[in-house]
Amino acid sequence: MNLSGIIGYPVTPFSQDNKQVELNKLGDVIDVLLEAKVDAIAALGSAGEAAYLSEAEWKQVAEYTVRHVAGKVPVVIGIAELTTEQAVRKAQHVYQIGADAIMLSPFSYYKLSEAEIFQHYETVASASPLPIMIYNNPATCGVDMSPEFMLEMVERIPNASMIKESTGDIQRMHKIYTLSDGKVPFFNGCNHMALEALNAGATGWCTAAPCLIGDKPKQLYDAVKQGENEKAKELFYRQYAFLEFIVSSGLAAAVKSGLALQGNDVGNPRKPLLPLNERAQQRLQGMLEGLA
Amino acid sequence: MNLSGIIGYPVTPFSQDNKQVELNKLGDVIDVLLEAKVDAIAALGSAGEAAYLSEAEWKQVAEYTVRHVAGKVPVVIGIAELTTEQAVRKAQHVYQIGADAIMLSPFSYYKLSEAEIFQHYETVASASPLPIMIYNNPATCGVDMSPEFMLEMVERIPNASMIKESTGDIQRMHKIYTLSDGKVPFFNGCNHMALEALNAGATGWCTAAPCLIGDKPKQLYDAVKQGENEKAKELFYRQYAFLEFIVSSGLAAAVKSGLALQGNDVGNPRKPLLPLNERAQQRLQGMLEGLA
Amino acid sequence: MNLSGIIGYPVTPFSQDNKQVELNKLGDVIDVLLEAKVDAIAALGSAGEAAYLSEAEWKQVAEYTVRHVAGKVPVVIGIAELTTEQAVRKAQHVYQIGADAIMLSPFSYYKLSEAEIFQHYETVASASPLPIMIYNNPATCGVDMSPEFMLEMVERIPNASMIKESTGDIQRMHKIYTLSDGKVPFFNGCNHMALEALNAGATGWCTAAPCLIGDKPKQLYDAVKQGENEKAKELFYRQYAFLEFIVSSGLAAAVKSGLALQGNDVGNPRKPLLPLNERAQQRLQGMLEGLA
Amino acid sequence: MNLSGIIGYPVTPFSQDNKQVELNKLGDVIDVLLEAKVDAIAALGSAGEAAYLSEAEWKQVAEYTVRHVAGKVPVVIGIAELTTEQAVRKAQHVYQIGADAIMLSPFSYYKLSEAEIFQHYETVASASPLPIMIYNNPATCGVDMSPEFMLEMVERIPNASMIKESTGDIQRMHKIYTLSDGKVPFFNGCNHMALEALNAGATGWCTAAPCLIGDKPKQLYDAVKQGENEKAKELFYRQYAFLEFIVSSGLAAAVKSGLALQGNDVGNPRKPLLPLNERAQQRLQGMLEGLA
Repeated sequence: MNLSGIIGYPVTPFSQDNKQVELNKLGDVIDVLLEAKVDAIAALGSAGEAAYLSEAEWKQVAEYTVRHVAGKVPVVIGIAELTTEQAVRKAQHVYQIGADAIMLSPFSYYKLSEAEIFQHYETVASASPLPIMIYNNPATCGVDMSPEFMLEMVERIPNASMIKESTGDIQRMHKIYTLSDGKVPFFNGCNHMALEALNAGATGWCTAAPCLIGDKPKQLYDAVKQGENEKAKELFYRQYAFLEFIVSSGLAAAVKSGLALQGNDVGNPRKPLLPLNERAQQRLQGMLEGLA
Repeated sequence: MNLSGIIGYPVTPFSQDNKQVELNKLGDVIDVLLEAKVDAIAALGSAGEAAYLSEAEWKQVAEYTVRHVAGKVPVVIGIAELTTEQAVRKAQHVYQIGADAIMLSPFSYYKLSEAEIFQHYETVASASPLPIMIYNNPATCGVDMSPEFMLEMVERIPNASMIKESTGDIQRMHKIYTLSDGKVPFFNGCNHMALEALNAGATGWCTAAPCLIGDKPKQLYDAVKQGENEKAKELFYRQYAFLEFIVSSGLAAAVKSGLALQGNDVGNPRKPLLPLNERAQQRLQGMLEGLA
Repeated sequence: MNLSGIIGYPVTPFSQDNKQVELNKLGDVIDVLLEAKVDAIAALGSAGEAAYLSEAEWKQVAEYTVRHVAGKVPVVIGIAELTTEQAVRKAQHVYQIGADAIMLSPFSYYKLSEAEIFQHYETVASASPLPIMIYNNPATCGVDMSPEFMLEMVERIPNASMIKESTGDIQRMHKIYTLSDGKVPFFNGCNHMALEALNAGATGWCTAAPCLIGDKPKQLYDAVKQGENEKAKELFYRQYAFLEFIVSSGLAAAVKSGLALQGNDVGNPRKPLLPLNERAQQRLQGMLEGLA
Repeated sequence: MNLSGIIGYPVTPFSQDNKQVELNKLGDVIDVLLEAKVDAIAALGSAGEAAYLSEAEWKQVAEYTVRHVAGKVPVVIGIAELTTEQAVRKAQHVYQIGADAIMLSPFSYYKLSEAEIFQHYETVASASPLPIMIYNNPATCGVDMSPEFMLEMVERIPNASMIKESTGDIQRMHKIYTLSDGKVPFFNGCNHMALEALNAGATGWCTAAPCLIGDKPKQLYDAVKQGENEKAKELFYRQYAFLEFIVSSGLAAAVKSGLALQGNDVGNPRKPLLPLNERAQQRLQGMLEGLA
């Protein structure tokens, strides 16, 4: 498996009472992503509200995703657990159901030391032969990993082979590139930084945006890869306010509201998360119309 | 129930293989706290590694604590859940088993807006008649609540009646005091800020320190309340390096290592958390000897 | 000379056209401070707008202050220069005119390393036999000095004998106290932290507040020193909103507006600094009336 | 005058005793920049240690620069003063000596409000007909200006027509571009962000790097403008460690040490600034050799 390009993130649809996962609607969202020409599907990331699912629901979503994608593109499954034991259990499950890669982030109550994080990655990685994408997202996970440390894990943990960077600091990518001589693939996890990430050598862009704006992220990716600078800049700035909006509003809430506006009701995010308020919905509606 | 003074936080003992809670050892730790003259027991806070327990374990610890304390002092139970539904379920349980109060904090993957936090508190509070202590600890929970917002919750949510502040910023306590005319009880959750918190009008000090240093926290509390300034300052500075150490080392790891050094083996913290390394253990040993 | 208690900071009055220092009005402000029972006068600090004066004006203010105070209390002169050479020249001047101590802070365009700061302090200190108060105020000076580093300077630079801490972080004071075994005198430079600073062992409180609220800061100082905890707490909370206001509004602007409200017009702060706007003036008026 | 491309920043050479500006050596540095194909010269910025010069020295440098460049490329002069009056005086001088543009930043002791900054810019801008580049560099100047606020100044102050952004946050540039529909020219002031800034639409790159590495910055600029993405990326990453190093070491110290290593002794930076220590010099030497 070779991961690159646009990695699309589906949201996880819930029933009206917020209590059940709606798998057939998840299928619809995955289809939207595939039509948007994503190069892979990554379920159970931030956009997928993985942190808010029971273990049983989590497994349902993972299994359904693999089955529904059916090999059309690679499937990545996100794992972000507070205990190593729980993460190991999920890593084993992900392998058993036939997913292609694991996106692994620490998740913390107590701040974790590098020794603790390393042990966590090593233990989880050894529980499955799948390639591991090291995912750094301190804003949601409460732990920040330096480029130096992540590259050390890539070197010392056999199947840890990729990095996803979501701090929003482009310098991290420059460090990953220069320290690894451009050899360790890294992915952009910060939507409104896509232009510079791709220009800086990112192998791909992890994004839920194609749930709402079709293949525009893919067009941007292609323009950069083909050296069409002016076109890339123009495509990026057309999407910019939208990309910034879905991040600052909370990805799950924003994408779910956007899908509803497009006639694709997938329920609300799970409480305490709230759907976008009316004013934010109107802003989003305006942006979606401008991009249609 | 009237909460004040030293609120003691037990750690949660685990078996050697890290897989089981050891309830009889939990009883020993609670006894240590009671001998240290704590005015209440608060289980399942940070020190208790609540975030790392399964739901079944969490309930075991809550029930055992209430039973073991047996009314000698009030029992507070901490709740910090990612979903409102899960927090409601635990709040109902806490009431059913006869605890005296709930310490409620948000816990977040996505950053939460004030509307989301308010709704969370309101829903959980209405699920049980117990008094709610609003607990603000952004370093672990990923969400910061301003004094103004917490006081608004105290005013608008009937059983939300107390605040625990753990940001480490003494100005928050000054704001709580002045904005509420000194009428809303607040508790200090930052060990190495105990002297100024008590002088600023804190009703109590929430701490796991008595697990290791007996009634020294209680002595400090008494000295401040009796206006013995010089004595309070001296008591505080004697404990200061220790208090700062257990916070910066991670409470659960530090207290568990300290108990082991005192011949009271309660197992390791749960992975990915690691026990103190040898050098840190030696530092802790030195501090405990100096305080004995 | 033994510095302790309330160190009063006069503002520097300007003419209506903002172009000249008004020395006789400076005398009036100093008299207000002396009537407020300050234990020392510190000219040319933040409140004195030292950073906005020409060298000639700066010398005028320094000389006039020493002459006007006339030995009633010690006089401290602040020095915060971008170049070491200029700071040396001022330190020599301060000694020649008979001041009692120098309050020395780095001031930076480029961030300074500890080696650069150390050399600066050492060179300036050796240019005059006066005692040096090391002044840490990163918000205005752009450089932060750790307790450890400042204590190292106290140890290695003969006349560097005191510390003024203005970060607003009470832990810095705890560190200074414990690391020096309570032997290095430190002063509080953060008005709305006065209660905890004094309780933590601060030798004095550096403040412009007595320009406007008489001996209330002195009363608070005395209450803490006499172990009257409840009285100290009450005195502090009565002043708290005012103390917080003058800091957050900019000391020079706030104190000058307050003096004008009290019939003591000392001109505006120097541009680009602006006087308080009308709404802020009204808030200040209300607070001054409440404290009268 | 139309400013774009590489804006080269000379350092200000001092005599061995650190006390005098060496104008003929300044001429040599300017010649190095011109040979490196810079599109403009900007004297008295950070690299030029403007903050550490007396007013007389400052004027000498400004005048000499205009005379020495002699119209070959436009000359920009930086102004960063604590008082508005002093900034006005310098703005008038800059116009009289025939410079082409002013780079104006606030410089602060007290934090400045937007009202204070606006008034400062308006007053200084009206003192000269030259175009004003609004320069945002909070790390050195202690004041941060939002894209929204800077664009408001561009709209309301007639000759304020350009922005230089040095926060290191690429999002600021995206905001400037989108909020102004790409119409307000902005310049990159953060060396190790040059690739993404140029790709994001920056009109130019303000840099002292050509003092040491010739036309490599110009080559990078050209590659981006010609849509040669791979070449631009490669050129950027070859320079990256060097660019990051001169910023983190302090521009003036690093560039002066580098010039000395290249046989072009321009003296030390002015105290308290120190030259690079030996280890840093060796690192720099290695990087310069690798780039030669």
